[in-house]
Amino acid sequence: MHARIGIGGEIELELLNDEYYMRLALQLAEKSLGQTGINPVVGCVIVKDGRIVGLGSHLQRGSHHAEVHALLMAGAEAEGSTAYVTLEPCSHFGRTPPCADRLVAEKVKRVVVACTDPNPQVAGTGIEKLRSHGIQVDVGVLEQEARTLNEMFNSFISTRLPFVTMKSATTLDGKIATITGDSKWISGTESRSYVHMLRHRHQSIMVGVDTVIADDPQLTARLDVPSIQPVRIVIDSKLRLPIEARVVQDKEAKTIVFTTNQASIEQMMRLNAFGVEVIRCGEGPRVDLRRAMGILAEREIGSVLLEGGGKLNGAMLEAGLIDKIVLFLAPKIVGGADAPGAFSMDGFAKMSEAVMLERVSIERFGDDCCITGYPKRTEGRKTECSPEL
Amino acid sequence: MHARIGIGGEIELELLNDEYYMRLALQLAEKSLGQTGINPVVGCVIVKDGRIVGLGSHLQRGSHHAEVHALLMAGAEAEGSTAYVTLEPCSHFGRTPPCADRLVAEKVKRVVVACTDPNPQVAGTGIEKLRSHGIQVDVGVLEQEARTLNEMFNSFISTRLPFVTMKSATTLDGKIATITGDSKWISGTESRSYVHMLRHRHQSIMVGVDTVIADDPQLTARLDVPSIQPVRIVIDSKLRLPIEARVVQDKEAKTIVFTTNQASIEQMMRLNAFGVEVIRCGEGPRVDLRRAMGILAEREIGSVLLEGGGKLNGAMLEAGLIDKIVLFLAPKIVGGADAPGAFSMDGFAKMSEAVMLERVSIERFGDDCCITGYPKRTEGRKTECSPEL
Repeated sequence: MHARIGIGGEIELELLNDEYYMRLALQLAEKSLGQTGINPVVGCVIVKDGRIVGLGSHLQRGSHHAEVHALLMAGAEAEGSTAYVTLEPCSHFGRTPPCADRLVAEKVKRVVVACTDPNPQVAGTGIEKLRSHGIQVDVGVLEQEARTLNEMFNSFISTRLPFVTMKSATTLDGKIATITGDSKWISGTESRSYVHMLRHRHQSIMVGVDTVIADDPQLTARLDVPSIQPVRIVIDSKLRLPIEARVVQDKEAKTIVFTTNQASIEQMMRLNAFGVEVIRCGEGPRVDLRRAMGILAEREIGSVLLEGGGKLNGAMLEAGLIDKIVLFLAPKIVGGADAPGAFSMDGFAKMSEAVMLERVSIERFGDDCCITGYPKRTEGRKTECSPEL
Repeated sequence: MHARIGIGGEIELELLNDEYYMRLALQLAEKSLGQTGINPVVGCVIVKDGRIVGLGSHLQRGSHHAEVHALLMAGAEAEGSTAYVTLEPCSHFGRTPPCADRLVAEKVKRVVVACTDPNPQVAGTGIEKLRSHGIQVDVGVLEQEARTLNEMFNSFISTRLPFVTMKSATTLDGKIATITGDSKWISGTESRSYVHMLRHRHQSIMVGVDTVIADDPQLTARLDVPSIQPVRIVIDSKLRLPIEARVVQDKEAKTIVFTTNQASIEQMMRLNAFGVEVIRCGEGPRVDLRRAMGILAEREIGSVLLEGGGKLNGAMLEAGLIDKIVLFLAPKIVGGADAPGAFSMDGFAKMSEAVMLERVSIERFGDDCCITGYPKRTEGRKTECSPEL
């Protein structure tokens, strides 16, 4: 049966239409998530006379855009074809020449675009250029899917801060460890594998130093095949990071430590000797988290996977620096009023003041439940500094 | 398109077969959940020559069984027909004569049974009687669905204790109220409506006296149409239940209070004057929860919807008295280490000791996530007494 079950359970028939090709272009783009740095992922499919003649995906920052790869594959067949692109073709000289010009030069007849450029200052200019050369342009096919695909890039473009995804795994009573600190394991194997996928798709992983001291994690992406290793970031006000920690010793990925002006120069130099970069960021006793995010952005780190612990999660949430929350709930109850939770925060007086998540989605991984959402932005955050880390 | 999306997303075609009729019989049974007391719900569909000729459901304890209703509707058409029954027809004289005899007398040709009697001492006897009279009997069509439908009855039959469903609604960080005690509202309107449905389908609702003192709840089932009002049960060791509480004053449903031998006779008499029954159950300072459950069973209360608070939930869980947990998680984070959670328990030292839920299901109500599961039975529970209530 040529049908697929769509979101919401409706049956979608696979018929030849614009969505048919755009879906493939989105799939090409989606598989490259994580490998384009602060660039968006983009897919392109070129079709002529009912046959796919070119396929392309933007694979790496600085290399060909998706349209160019697809046009190269299409060769002479590009003339008179239809190009499906998940993002508006660029019209300016960046690291590569403008794709709009290339589509014109190759005499493409029609261009179907999923969504416009997220940068409001250039949105529409690529489409205009195409139209001014007589190319038919249709915009908005699978637009929402295309926008969600590049949610990290879109956020970075507008805020100039990395997109922060907070990930945690708790019991049903909200605990990330027992009263004695034991946390192995809360979530099941499916959930833990998915976390490694999230790591592959983020440019950095961030934890508080207490997490390193307690668990000595590797903070690497470990999957069945080789994956990209994100930069490891440790928030460590007093520079307590042990020299023998894996993130210092193992050379599996770069490690950056954010500390304060009060940190010991000797300890900084000891960490530097192992290739660990230490950045002073905060005049007072705590790391200035917003400034730290700004420094990461300057280094073209556009996404952060925040993996706790509770104090850092709470401080990041209170500072309004969390863009997305991915919470795994394991079907178990461990109890203990003093057992730690995923968010260590003072707490609101009224239930109506709670931080609400928007655009909630619920998935199942094995017996775990995975709830994903986006904290609603509100004014008047309490603090922009790290907790006692 | 004559297709329905089945569990797991596969497409089920609606074809005329045993499942087709048994599904209707299950639907007839399911709608009567809550109105048969400690009896199971049962549905029956009688079919002859490709036409449905009889429909029946067991509607009330002491009245006709499903088969009898359906046979009465079928009349003379019953001869040579096939009867689909969700539960093995009875073969003994209870409050009504044996249904197996009736099926034989009406000359039914074939009987399709979803599941056998949950009482191992009588399981199979009804089927044997039918077969001994030459009736073809097939067992096991939609068996799992039929067993789950009567999970409360099946449990009661084997344990002689009420089936306890614990229901709670928490934030994503596991809180049932803020640090100041505010709890309105945690879950959304869809979740709250479903709770009223759960009340309709249980014979009793149980809370700790602290919940009554804090919230003065009505503990009634309030839906768009009239519903059954379960018995209200309050666990109250020191008999602190205020006379002015709604559960004492409003006469919307019967209220039973479990207390200890230390309770004041005067206060007991004051409550009795309002029609509230007070049962002493516990020599020491706390209510003996297992004995309380036994007393409810003796009164033919076969199901309890446990609605907290945290201390009572924790004690019931530790006593191994919770059969099922229905937990609503609202997509919000409220914080506060001292804000109360759904389970107030000492807590386990090791994550591997946590109470695991089995047969987990995950549903969505609005933006809330509803996780349902069955606590795995383990030996060596700590306590069988109520907490300080």
